[in-house]
Amino acid sequence: MDFKSFIRDVPNFPKEGVVFKDITLLLQNPITLNETANALLKLLDGQKIDKVVGMESRGFIFGPMLAERLNAGFVPVRKPGKLPSKRISETYNLEYGTDTLEIHLDAIEKGDKVLIHDDVMATGGTANAACKLVEKLGGEIVQCNFLIELTFLNGVSKIKDYPVKSLLKY
Amino acid sequence: MDFKSFIRDVPNFPKEGVVFKDITLLLQNPITLNETANALLKLLDGQKIDKVVGMESRGFIFGPMLAERLNAGFVPVRKPGKLPSKRISETYNLEYGTDTLEIHLDAIEKGDKVLIHDDVMATGGTANAACKLVEKLGGEIVQCNFLIELTFLNGVSKIKDYPVKSLLKY
Repeated sequence: MDFKSFIRDVPNFPKEGVVFKDITLLLQNPITLNETANALLKLLDGQKIDKVVGMESRGFIFGPMLAERLNAGFVPVRKPGKLPSKRISETYNLEYGTDTLEIHLDAIEKGDKVLIHDDVMATGGTANAACKLVEKLGGEIVQCNFLIELTFLNGVSKIKDYPVKSLLKY
Repeated sequence: MDFKSFIRDVPNFPKEGVVFKDITLLLQNPITLNETANALLKLLDGQKIDKVVGMESRGFIFGPMLAERLNAGFVPVRKPGKLPSKRISETYNLEYGTDTLEIHLDAIEKGDKVLIHDDVMATGGTANAACKLVEKLGGEIVQCNFLIELTFLNGVSKIKDYPVKSLLKY
């Protein structure tokens, strides 16, 4: 399926000079919604997964659909102040300043096989922070799995210790 | 299934005196993740749906799973500055101040049968704004569908023009 024909380029969003990859046309079509989740699943090549970790907030869309296909649980990784129970956090560098992600302490059990999912990998900072959070809790990263990889940002260099697979590359 | 035993009460979150309903234990269990989506689907009683509209960000979790079960598309309703393409917005009142939600102009076609989904209905303000956005685009609200309804906040009074169904009531 030609998924790329459902990805809309939006120039100068969220800021001047950036071309944003808009996935909403792919989501609002029942066939591509379903087929995208199937194609993301295939990237795993049959490996067993206990938990799918999805990053706020667009990682919440295909993360649970993947979890269901894998008979796995879904774990949200969120920005500070959103997860209500006991949690740990990981702070990472941005172009200017820092950002922080959190995960619940009881979200991952020691030895859990984990799939990290997000819709877009840009610089890799978010994915790397999510991997670190999972490892702090004793989980094992089986794959970092993205719908879209912006290869010109070379995000894979930030998560080179983990297997990375992306459905669509730009 | 006793879904309520998977909902964790977190006192004084996000602020003093509030008891937060934490759904993460339900999400991280493969069985309840799947069964919750099935139970949310049953609330519809077989009605045809073209688009499931889910509110940022926890409405993104079961919204797409419901869309898949209904052979419908998924449409995100988001906070300002998140949706990149042409959009409309709806501002609504909070206890102090206002909040705004946005939807893409091309997300709903005239006559689309729409299911509104969110994880929690509290005051109903978010759900009402989402309904207004869909109607502005010519969509027809078939149901507002929630995992959790906080009945003591009487949110149904804000969306009394629409059919409302909730899986768990508190």
